[in-house]
Amino acid sequence: MKDNKLTVEIYGKQYTMRGDESTTHMQAIAEHVDDKMKEVATGNPKLDVTRLAVLSAVNISDDYLKLKQEYDELLELIDEK
Amino acid sequence: MKDNKLTVEIYGKQYTMRGDESTTHMQAIAEHVDDKMKEVATGNPKLDVTRLAVLSAVNISDDYLKLKQEYDELLELIDEK
Repeated sequence: MKDNKLTVEIYGKQYTMRGDESTTHMQAIAEHVDDKMKEVATGNPKLDVTRLAVLSAVNISDDYLKLKQEYDELLELIDEK
Repeated sequence: MKDNKLTVEIYGKQYTMRGDESTTHMQAIAEHVDDKMKEVATGNPKLDVTRLAVLSAVNISDDYLKLKQEYDELLELIDEK
């Protein structure tokens, strides 16, 4: 089910998001990506937008994989108790 | 400290990654982004690469924010015990 639809702005471009999540969650995702892209752009002012977007995806994946590891460790800890 | 350096390929382009993480972790991040971009491309064959990269970042952020919520709930559950 992809019931909700929302137009968001990420790094100056508009995107239509569709999903079963709340529009509040979708807006939060868009803001997260926008923030990350601005952060990467600040450190690399000459980067073209495609590379900027890919490097932002890299940084978000880094956060994700680190959190996944912590989450798995926490689950393991609970199992051991 | 940004001791390690690795050249990776993401969606056909080369990127130099620098960080204090292991090169194995960096490679895993690059593969994660590459997979996500290919996944988005399959569903949206006409999308330009910048939009493709941004939408991949959106999907990864979605995963991240959902996992963050589960992680926080798990921590809360442990605290309550």
